[in-house]
Amino acid sequence: MKDLRLSLIGFGVVGQGLAELLVKKRTLLEERFGLHVTLVSVANARHGFIYRAEGLDIPLLLELASQQQPLTRHPNVQYWASALDGLRATGGDVLAEVTGTNLRDAEPGISHIRVALTQGMHVVTANKGPLALAGQELLTLAHQQHVQLRMESTVMAGTPVISTLTEGMAGARVRSVRGILNGTTNYILSAMAAGRDYAEVLAEAQAQGYAEADPTADVEGFDALAKTLILAAVGFGHTLKPEQVYRKGITTISGEQMRQAMNEGKRIKLVASLHAVSAFGESPLEARVEPLALPLSDPLARVDGVMNAITFQMDTLSEVTVIGPGAGRLQTGQGLLSDLLAIAQA
Amino acid sequence: MKDLRLSLIGFGVVGQGLAELLVKKRTLLEERFGLHVTLVSVANARHGFIYRAEGLDIPLLLELASQQQPLTRHPNVQYWASALDGLRATGGDVLAEVTGTNLRDAEPGISHIRVALTQGMHVVTANKGPLALAGQELLTLAHQQHVQLRMESTVMAGTPVISTLTEGMAGARVRSVRGILNGTTNYILSAMAAGRDYAEVLAEAQAQGYAEADPTADVEGFDALAKTLILAAVGFGHTLKPEQVYRKGITTISGEQMRQAMNEGKRIKLVASLHAVSAFGESPLEARVEPLALPLSDPLARVDGVMNAITFQMDTLSEVTVIGPGAGRLQTGQGLLSDLLAIAQA
Repeated sequence: MKDLRLSLIGFGVVGQGLAELLVKKRTLLEERFGLHVTLVSVANARHGFIYRAEGLDIPLLLELASQQQPLTRHPNVQYWASALDGLRATGGDVLAEVTGTNLRDAEPGISHIRVALTQGMHVVTANKGPLALAGQELLTLAHQQHVQLRMESTVMAGTPVISTLTEGMAGARVRSVRGILNGTTNYILSAMAAGRDYAEVLAEAQAQGYAEADPTADVEGFDALAKTLILAAVGFGHTLKPEQVYRKGITTISGEQMRQAMNEGKRIKLVASLHAVSAFGESPLEARVEPLALPLSDPLARVDGVMNAITFQMDTLSEVTVIGPGAGRLQTGQGLLSDLLAIAQA
Repeated sequence: MKDLRLSLIGFGVVGQGLAELLVKKRTLLEERFGLHVTLVSVANARHGFIYRAEGLDIPLLLELASQQQPLTRHPNVQYWASALDGLRATGGDVLAEVTGTNLRDAEPGISHIRVALTQGMHVVTANKGPLALAGQELLTLAHQQHVQLRMESTVMAGTPVISTLTEGMAGARVRSVRGILNGTTNYILSAMAAGRDYAEVLAEAQAQGYAEADPTADVEGFDALAKTLILAAVGFGHTLKPEQVYRKGITTISGEQMRQAMNEGKRIKLVASLHAVSAFGESPLEARVEPLALPLSDPLARVDGVMNAITFQMDTLSEVTVIGPGAGRLQTGQGLLSDLLAIAQA
C-alpha cells in the first residue's frame, strides 16, 4: 500500500467534492490502486490552515463545513492563520489547490502552487487563474523540480480533456482546438434555441445555481477565455496573454439571430478556439472566444444544456471530440482524483 | 535520454503504420519525451523473425515491405523462421504485437503476448483476439510480472478509449458503455440513411478498401463483438465468452426500416453495449451488439461515415462521449505510439 500525504487548500464546493470522493472511494483506491490517501492539512480563507500529521478526520471536516463552523474545531490540530505559512511549515506529497479563480493576478492560488512546487510537492489544481496566466512558468518549475503539476479539472471538470491531449493522444501534434467550454452560456443558448428570452433564461439559471449573481465571467466569455489560455499552454506549449485572445460574449445575441440560425439548420454556440498559424504574425496561435452558428454536422452543434465539448484536430488522428460535464461538485472532484491517481502511479 | 528496445511482430498495414510514425516522430519523441526507440526485431508471417542488437533500419524495412520483398534482405541480421523462437531468444523492453485478429483461438498473437509477458517484456497490441478471448488472464499475467499490457488501438484505433476509461477517468466506476465501434458498418448505414441500397454501398465500401472481400466480420457484428469483450475485461474486470453477447448484424436492415427511422427523426446505428446488471443472472454484465434506431438527441446518432464513438456512463461524471476515427494505418499506429509513451514514462 502506497501512502500519499495530501494538503488541501480551498474547502469550498470543489474542495469538499474532492474530500467527499476520498471518503466514498477509499476502498476502491486501496483495493484497485493500492493507494491510501492521508489528508494532513486543510485550509480555507476564513478559518486558516490546520495540520495533523496522523491525518485529519474528513467526515468531521465535511460536517463542520456543512454547518458553517470553523475547521479549527477539528481536535488535535496545529494551526496557522496563513495557508502559505502552514504549507511551508508542514508540506506533504501533493497539494490540491482549489481556491477560487482570479484572472487578474491568479492569487492566492499561484503563490500556493509556487511554494508547493518549490518544496518538491506535486500539485493538482482546479483553479484556472494560475494555469491561465502563468501556465508555462509553472509547468517549467514543476519539470525542474521533478514533480507533476496536473490540472484536469480546470477545463470541463473531470471530463478527460487535459489528459486526453497530453497522455491519451501522446505523440500526436495538435493543430487546432474548438470547444464549448462554459456550461452557463451553453445552458442559456440551448434555452434560447428553444425560443426563450435571454434575460428570462439568465434569471432562471441564476435561481438554479448554474449562473452567478454577477454573470459577467460566464456571459462575457472570460471563463472560456481562461480555459483557452490553459489549452494554449498545455496543448501548444505557448503562453498567450488574455488580451491576445479575441473575445465576444453572448449578451448581444438577439432572438432574431437565434431564429435565423435555426432556420438555416444551425445552432449558435459560444465557441473557444485555438489554431496554429504560420509564424508571420506576432503569435503562432490564433485564439478566439465568440458565438458562432454551427451546422448540425458539427459535433459541437448538438451539445446542449450544461454539457461541454471539445474537438481536437490532430496530425495522426484527424478529428477527436470529447463531450461531457463541464462543472459540478463531484465532477470536478473526479478530475482532481484522476490527477492524484496519475501521480500515485507514476 | 531513455532507450526503449522494441520488438515488432506483424508487419502489415498496422505494423508499417507504427514503423512510419517511429521515423516521422523521432525528433518529437527525443525532444519532448526524452525517448529513443530502437527497433531490435521485426517479424511477419511470410518471412520470419529478424533481429539486430544495434537496431534495424526502419526506412529500409518499409521500403522492402512496399516492394513486397523479404525482410531478410535487411543486412547484418540474425534470423529465426518462427517469431516465437526469435522472441524467446532475443527479447527487448516492449513487444508490439500487431498480427491479424483471430477470434477463434487468438493465435498466433496470444502466444506472442504470453511469451513476452512471461519473460518480463511490456506489451502493446492492436490485435483484438488475445484481449477479447483472454483479457483478464493476460492482464493478470502482466500484473504478476510487473509489466504493462496496453491495447489502446484495439478499440477505435488511436482515439483514446481504453486510456480514457482506465486513466483519464481513473477512480470513477463505469456503469454502462454504448458505442459505434465498427467503421465499415457505420459507413454503410450512413450511406443507407442517405437513401442508398445495402448491396450497392457494400460493393462501394469494398472497392474503397473500407470493407473486406468477405465482409462477415464487420456486417455480422463480430468485430464490434470483439471490442465489446475487450471493454468488458478492461472496464468491468469481467471476462465474457463470445456466446454471452447478444449479436445481430446489419444485413437484414431494409430500406423501408431506414426510411421509417428517418421519418421518426432517428438514425439506425450498429450499437455495441455493456450494462452492469444486478447479480441475479449468470453474468453481472449484459452485452449486446445490434442495430438500434437512435433519437438525434443521442450523441451517437450523428456520428457518420467511418467515424466511431463511445459513450460511458460513470458514477462521478454522468455521461462522457468520445468521437474519433476507428481505423486507419496512422490512426492505429498512433494508439500504439501513445501506449509506448505511457510505458516509457511510467
